[in-house]
Amino acid sequence: MANGKRITHIQTDYFLVPLAEQLGDARHGIHSHFELITVTIGLEDGSEGVGYTYTGGVGGRAVCQMIEHDLKPFLLGKDASCIEKHWEEMNWKIHYVGRGGIASFAISAIDIALWDLRGKSCDEPLWKLLGGHASSTKAYAGAIDLNFTKEKLLANIQGYMDKGFQAVKIKLGQERLAEDIERVAAVRELIGPDRTFMVDANMKWSVETSIKAAKLLAPHDIFWLEEPTIPDDYDGYRRIGAEGGLPIAAGENFHTVYEFVNMITRGKIDFPQPDASNIGGVTGWLKIANLAYAYNLPVCTHGMQELHVSLMSAMPNASYLEVHSFPIDQYTKRPLVIQDGRAVAPDVPGTGVEFRWELLQPYKQLF
Amino acid sequence: MANGKRITHIQTDYFLVPLAEQLGDARHGIHSHFELITVTIGLEDGSEGVGYTYTGGVGGRAVCQMIEHDLKPFLLGKDASCIEKHWEEMNWKIHYVGRGGIASFAISAIDIALWDLRGKSCDEPLWKLLGGHASSTKAYAGAIDLNFTKEKLLANIQGYMDKGFQAVKIKLGQERLAEDIERVAAVRELIGPDRTFMVDANMKWSVETSIKAAKLLAPHDIFWLEEPTIPDDYDGYRRIGAEGGLPIAAGENFHTVYEFVNMITRGKIDFPQPDASNIGGVTGWLKIANLAYAYNLPVCTHGMQELHVSLMSAMPNASYLEVHSFPIDQYTKRPLVIQDGRAVAPDVPGTGVEFRWELLQPYKQLF
Ligand SMILES: [Mg+2]
Ligand SMILES: [Mg+2]
Repeated sequence: MANGKRITHIQTDYFLVPLAEQLGDARHGIHSHFELITVTIGLEDGSEGVGYTYTGGVGGRAVCQMIEHDLKPFLLGKDASCIEKHWEEMNWKIHYVGRGGIASFAISAIDIALWDLRGKSCDEPLWKLLGGHASSTKAYAGAIDLNFTKEKLLANIQGYMDKGFQAVKIKLGQERLAEDIERVAAVRELIGPDRTFMVDANMKWSVETSIKAAKLLAPHDIFWLEEPTIPDDYDGYRRIGAEGGLPIAAGENFHTVYEFVNMITRGKIDFPQPDASNIGGVTGWLKIANLAYAYNLPVCTHGMQELHVSLMSAMPNASYLEVHSFPIDQYTKRPLVIQDGRAVAPDVPGTGVEFRWELLQPYKQLF
Repeated sequence: MANGKRITHIQTDYFLVPLAEQLGDARHGIHSHFELITVTIGLEDGSEGVGYTYTGGVGGRAVCQMIEHDLKPFLLGKDASCIEKHWEEMNWKIHYVGRGGIASFAISAIDIALWDLRGKSCDEPLWKLLGGHASSTKAYAGAIDLNFTKEKLLANIQGYMDKGFQAVKIKLGQERLAEDIERVAAVRELIGPDRTFMVDANMKWSVETSIKAAKLLAPHDIFWLEEPTIPDDYDGYRRIGAEGGLPIAAGENFHTVYEFVNMITRGKIDFPQPDASNIGGVTGWLKIANLAYAYNLPVCTHGMQELHVSLMSAMPNASYLEVHSFPIDQYTKRPLVIQDGRAVAPDVPGTGVEFRWELLQPYKQLF
């Protein structure tokens, strides 16, 4: 039992993991690696929990330093069970230099490890511990495919359909908007009228371009338009939603609860997409999922599908889980399981995300 | 001439500098040290510029890692003159893990070094290079004095008056609001009716308490009420301003231009206080100063007075420079100069902030 047990050690590890191919989107440029930061928390009774966060290739070492030098000394010796108290106090401890950004990534990794311990301590899988609404969730697949040729794009989408996915997403933000629309038309033709189809512009566009794009996209039955412009422009999102006429998704770039509440109340967001790796872990993700619930909105996710599958399964207001192309789950004992187009939550105590350290070892670096 | 010259080396140094005594405020707890992160940028012609940022004791090593691993590789070889282009590109390069927080501190240190180079290259002091409105600026003194006894508080304020300051600030946020008001009354009695008097609650209060406090403070002729509540609550600030009736100051916790524009347009802020050490350096600070100008607002500062004196002197809309109790300037060749209650900008090319490295050496640590 971890209940009431004190934290006796915290180990942070850094891995720079190469991608099988270089991937590009409209704003983040080319990705050749992702950074994986793992945090192993040990308690006085010998139990251990593992949490993690990831980046698109930059900032990971700063995350490690914040965990090691600013958060670890604060946590050692504390009662591991008081997760939400630690969450609040960690946020305040690094508030001046924090409030989102690197701080949210660092807190996320720690918080997930504490939830892993809570699950193990209660002998419950996360999907039950957090609500138990279902043991699986709807899922869609999407690649960082902006630079794929149209042929490769279609082959990739066909691959998702072959795996049973009933929903897919592609990246937008080509030099010419007409090319985006052409790719969308081709994908819609391939997947047929019944599959769900989302698009993601990764903040590439101005508000005016977003509205124009939304109108051109609408005839292709688009389920949501993701991140048309920068996440700070609440008025812009409101206009894109109202004048463009498509449902709006966003969240991977909101790293505090306040950014979500502001976008929900002042901007426009139909599909909030919190990411437990950058919104403050399971604790932060739950705050957003419940905020969405209170505003009569569904909740979605970004990345980290091997963990989010449990969170989404737990929730009454879950929409679609993103199955992202950073293959973190390929380095775990249980890569994401898809059955009949749904992602199935692991049914073991804790997060169910157990790393195969021997696979990660070649990518480990000092930080 | 640095114009058009390429960046050939970037050195980051970390110093954990002890304070003469432990200092406390309402939200950040006790400060025993500040962290100073310096960045020295060298160009192919041998010229060098120095920039820096600081923290209240946490997060500094994360800042160093972001500079070393994420920003330095991006900047090496680039033309040092294109400062604003680098600012924009650095912000985008680390956008996903950035957007404020640690990222803004890291960019600040680099940006200040580039402005130091620009000043040296043009043979101009910063106060002229940035506008030349004046060569000095109004200044107020304030300590992190929440935990001072009333006697010590008054002695400290007397010390400021003895140095010629015509404006002072104290911390609020005692357990009992009545004690805050009592301290305010005592300070007002000491300084007399003609000196300017600001107060700072460091985000301690709820909106309701802030309104109540503002009404109780008003009879003591308070120039501004600083950070009554959390910086994310735009509606709360609007209510505190409207119902409390005191002018509002905030800014040290806004680390992006968007946070300022949202607080100005949706919240309530009469004295924006950008800090060049956490808003993206001189480039970020100028964006806020000009945003304030466009909204018919003055601009103020937070901390780092040895640099901000040049920025404030340059501006037509400068209000009061904060003279903060983190004594960074005591480790430079020219500690802040106060004449007739005004702070005087250094009149040498560049920022005029030249560190005495031999004084800092004992506090240097590996990061
Ligand atoms: Mg996305
Ligand atoms: Mg303050």
